[in-house]
Amino acid sequence: MPQQDRAHATREAILHAAAEEFDRLGYERTSLTAVLARAGLTKGAFYFHFASKEAVAGALIERQSDLWAQVRESWRARGVDPLSALHGMFLESADRMAADVVLRAGVRLNADREIGYPGVPSTHVMWEKLIGGYLAEALERGDLRAGVDPEAVARTLCGAALGARLISSATTACADFPARIREVMGHVLPCVAAAEWKLSGSQNAVDGAGGP
Amino acid sequence: MPQQDRAHATREAILHAAAEEFDRLGYERTSLTAVLARAGLTKGAFYFHFASKEAVAGALIERQSDLWAQVRESWRARGVDPLSALHGMFLESADRMAADVVLRAGVRLNADREIGYPGVPSTHVMWEKLIGGYLAEALERGDLRAGVDPEAVARTLCGAALGARLISSATTACADFPARIREVMGHVLPCVAAAEWKLSGSQNAVDGAGGP
Repeated sequence: MPQQDRAHATREAILHAAAEEFDRLGYERTSLTAVLARAGLTKGAFYFHFASKEAVAGALIERQSDLWAQVRESWRARGVDPLSALHGMFLESADRMAADVVLRAGVRLNADREIGYPGVPSTHVMWEKLIGGYLAEALERGDLRAGVDPEAVARTLCGAALGARLISSATTACADFPARIREVMGHVLPCVAAAEWKLSGSQNAVDGAGGP
Repeated sequence: MPQQDRAHATREAILHAAAEEFDRLGYERTSLTAVLARAGLTKGAFYFHFASKEAVAGALIERQSDLWAQVRESWRARGVDPLSALHGMFLESADRMAADVVLRAGVRLNADREIGYPGVPSTHVMWEKLIGGYLAEALERGDLRAGVDPEAVARTLCGAALGARLISSATTACADFPARIREVMGHVLPCVAAAEWKLSGSQNAVDGAGGP
C-alpha cells in the first residue's frame, strides 16, 4: 500500500475505533487508551493524525454534518414533493445510522454537546427550522390538512426522532432505530397529510439508504 | 417553628436548591458548593440530612417515581377509558414537570442514569410496557383503529415525550414542554384512535395538573 493510502487507512481506523467507543460510552467516558487498544495502534500513530480526543470527536461531528447536507441535496435532486422528501430523509437517516457506527457516533457526540446544556441546543433548533421549512412548503402546496401547524409538526418529528434514537441506542445499539422511525412516520404523517397526498419516491429512500 | 418542622423545612430547601442545579446542569456538573450557596446553608446542615450528593439525587429520583405512581392511581380512580387516561396522564405529567423543578430534576437524574448507558434504560423500557398496556386495553375495547400495534404506538409516544422533554429543557427550561406534549398527542392520537373514540375526562386532566 502506498504511504498516502496507508496514512488514510490509519486515520479511518482511528475514526472507526473512536466511533465504536464514543457510540457506546459518550465523550466523557471514552478513553484514548481504549480507542488505541481497539485500533491496535500506538499513541505515536494516533498523534500523527489527531491532536487530541477532542479532535477525533470534532472530525466525527463534521463528518455527520457533511453527510446530512449530502442527504438533503440528494433528496432535493430527486424532485419529489416536500412531504415525501421529508419522509424519505427520515428513513434514510435512520437506516444509515443503524448501519454506520462512524455516523452514529458523530450524531451522538453532536447531540450530547447540546442536550442537557441550557441554551446551546443549536442543532436541534436548526433541525426544527429546517424540517418546518419542508412542512411549510407542503402546506402551501395543499399537501397538509387545513389547520395543521408546520412548526408544531416539525417539533413533534424532531422530538420523536431524538427520543427514538436515545432509547434505541441504549437498548439495541440503534438496531431497531429504522423500525422506530418508520413507526413514528406511520403514526404522525397520516394525521397531518391531506387525504389526497400520496407518498412518492419512498422505495428509492430505502434502496439508497445503505441500510441493513 | 418547632424543631421537627424546621428540620423538614431545611431538608426541603436542600432538595429544592439541589433540584435547581441538577435540572440545569445534570448530576456530574452539579457541585455541592453551588447547592449550599443557593440554599444558604452550611455543609454541616447539609450532612445532617444527606450523606452525599448521590443521596440527594436518590431522594429526588424516588420522589418522582412515587409521584408517577400517584398520578397513575388517580387516573385509574377516575374510571375513564384507557386512551383518555393515557392522554390525561401525559398532559398532567408535562404540566407538573413544567411547574415543579423538584419533579423535573428527579426525572432528568433518573433518565440521565440510563440514557447513553448501553443496556440499562430500565425506566424507559418499563414506561414503554406500561403505556403499551393502556393501548392494548384500548385496542381490546375497540378504541384503536384496526391494525394499530399498541406496542408500536407506545414506542412512538415514549420516544416523542423523551425527545420533547430534552429539547424543551435545553431551550426553555421545560416552559414549552406542556405545549410540546399537547402537540405530540394531537399529532398521534387521531392517527391511531378509532373514529368513534371520544376523549373523556380531559378537562379534569388540565384542571388537576397544577400546571401554569
